[in-house]
Amino acid sequence: MKINMSYGSGGVQTSNLIHDIFLKHFNNSILNRLEDSAVLNVSGKIAYTTDSFVVTPMFFKGGDIGKLAVCGTVNDLTMMGAIPKYLTCGFILEEGTEIETVERIAESMARAAKEAKVKIVAGDTKVIEGKGGVYINTSGIGEIAVNGVSVSACKEGDAILLSGNLGEHHAAIMSERMGIQNEISSDCAPLTGILNKFIKEGIKVHFMRDVTRGGLATILNEITDSSNCGVEIEETALPISNEIRGFCDILGLDPLYMANEGKMIAVVPGKQAEKALEAMRSSVYGKNAAIIGRITEGKSVTMKTTLQGTRRIDVLYGEGLPRIC
Amino acid sequence: MKINMSYGSGGVQTSNLIHDIFLKHFNNSILNRLEDSAVLNVSGKIAYTTDSFVVTPMFFKGGDIGKLAVCGTVNDLTMMGAIPKYLTCGFILEEGTEIETVERIAESMARAAKEAKVKIVAGDTKVIEGKGGVYINTSGIGEIAVNGVSVSACKEGDAILLSGNLGEHHAAIMSERMGIQNEISSDCAPLTGILNKFIKEGIKVHFMRDVTRGGLATILNEITDSSNCGVEIEETALPISNEIRGFCDILGLDPLYMANEGKMIAVVPGKQAEKALEAMRSSVYGKNAAIIGRITEGKSVTMKTTLQGTRRIDVLYGEGLPRIC
Repeated sequence: MKINMSYGSGGVQTSNLIHDIFLKHFNNSILNRLEDSAVLNVSGKIAYTTDSFVVTPMFFKGGDIGKLAVCGTVNDLTMMGAIPKYLTCGFILEEGTEIETVERIAESMARAAKEAKVKIVAGDTKVIEGKGGVYINTSGIGEIAVNGVSVSACKEGDAILLSGNLGEHHAAIMSERMGIQNEISSDCAPLTGILNKFIKEGIKVHFMRDVTRGGLATILNEITDSSNCGVEIEETALPISNEIRGFCDILGLDPLYMANEGKMIAVVPGKQAEKALEAMRSSVYGKNAAIIGRITEGKSVTMKTTLQGTRRIDVLYGEGLPRIC
Repeated sequence: MKINMSYGSGGVQTSNLIHDIFLKHFNNSILNRLEDSAVLNVSGKIAYTTDSFVVTPMFFKGGDIGKLAVCGTVNDLTMMGAIPKYLTCGFILEEGTEIETVERIAESMARAAKEAKVKIVAGDTKVIEGKGGVYINTSGIGEIAVNGVSVSACKEGDAILLSGNLGEHHAAIMSERMGIQNEISSDCAPLTGILNKFIKEGIKVHFMRDVTRGGLATILNEITDSSNCGVEIEETALPISNEIRGFCDILGLDPLYMANEGKMIAVVPGKQAEKALEAMRSSVYGKNAAIIGRITEGKSVTMKTTLQGTRRIDVLYGEGLPRIC
């Protein structure tokens, strides 16, 4: 069975899709009410964000568009020091999409939401002409657990930590598209576990950001753009697997500009660097964490290279890899 | 200048788009921080919803996809008894879209947000292959001002009010597509003003819903599906303009199944019907409001026809008009 325009009509077929697939998998008492909006009890400061997902192919080693749509928004909330609580989900389905595909995506979203401890509380479905593509928007609400996490809180002397190996999501998507056989799997994952470890260990985190489109290089430039600081990282400290190194060598890619979907940087006071590193490493998705550099004076992003040279790191120009998330 | 894939890269071009268009028009202190999430102070119960918009053509008499994307989500919040406060906005742009078009849409969203008194506090932009299409998702948060507004609160003897003329958005979109010259304009509008009047006048509203995809017939069936009540409306009471009547006669359309984007029904205690009607009519977008029927015992939706017959009203089967919102 395939999606046709009547599944976006708001009538019987839309209702069937909602009941047979979305309610079945996302099942929770708030969503099940099927009102125009979810009604939630929240208290105090919340984080609120949105992200759309257009990744192609929709299914890849280590994940799929559904898992990505949950983890991406969960991570955006986490990076603001918030514990993610609720998501909304807007599907735009192209005509011709197999209903089985929609269900496979919904199942994957439900699994990811369960791991990330979030509820999908509201949704919407539209159908457009096309050839079986799926686009997903998620928005999310989290309760702020750590106040003042902001790029403007970065200070000279702070340490910069990276939670694990660079480039994996990017390389996995590229491998799928090019038909390259390898063991590289997307790192797509929720990162709230790392925030929870920071809270438990009393780490006073100044800034966090997940490494996605634009890669590590672009994030580090955002720090210098939005604070009055510079950034210095060390090439030898960057965690990169041998598989990714080989992949990059062959294809002429630079891991600094490659997207991850389950990695983050954290900027913490210099004297808490080792403790923060331990906290990261004790988390499921932080086993390969490393201290990769520090916040400096000045306004530039530089890298001490393996050969002890200094390389200036710029923001991404042009397109790294289209539709990577 | 046209959108190309690099505007979705997360790098320099994405950043230019954000600064030159979105921040310029949506300008507010929360969005301007450009963090991974907006940080908001909310208190108590909130309403939370999402909607995607794929309307074609993007610009039509009385509105455009941007105005629709703001009003649609504002209305979903309002229908839960909430005062809309914050929106997020996710753009999916097809390659080849004129940047001028994106700006025109953003301007329109900003204007609609201003009228509806909401702030756009977070956003996202993705680019896909295509021929210049634009898809917009908005999510929204509102603060609940009236508790217990729910389809399950409908009771036998309640009056059903409709805030104005049926079929206008549907007919406007259809006219654009078919190249029909007429004066029919989309009714796309924010309906929070009507809720505010209800609150001011002490109307104990049981249920509200905006009349969108699926039309009035589908909403009335949702009442009987989700409550233990029936619905009876009177054909002679339905507010329909002469232009829409003529349009429907010529094209064989039924206004009961046509979409609006600035109309709502309200179910209120029978004895408050006249007072609620006055409240609606005193609002900018409720001038043609009417009491159209009542909640009855039983489980069916029926209409007393002009000729004093009884017609059973079913939910929409198939597709009314694809991509109407």
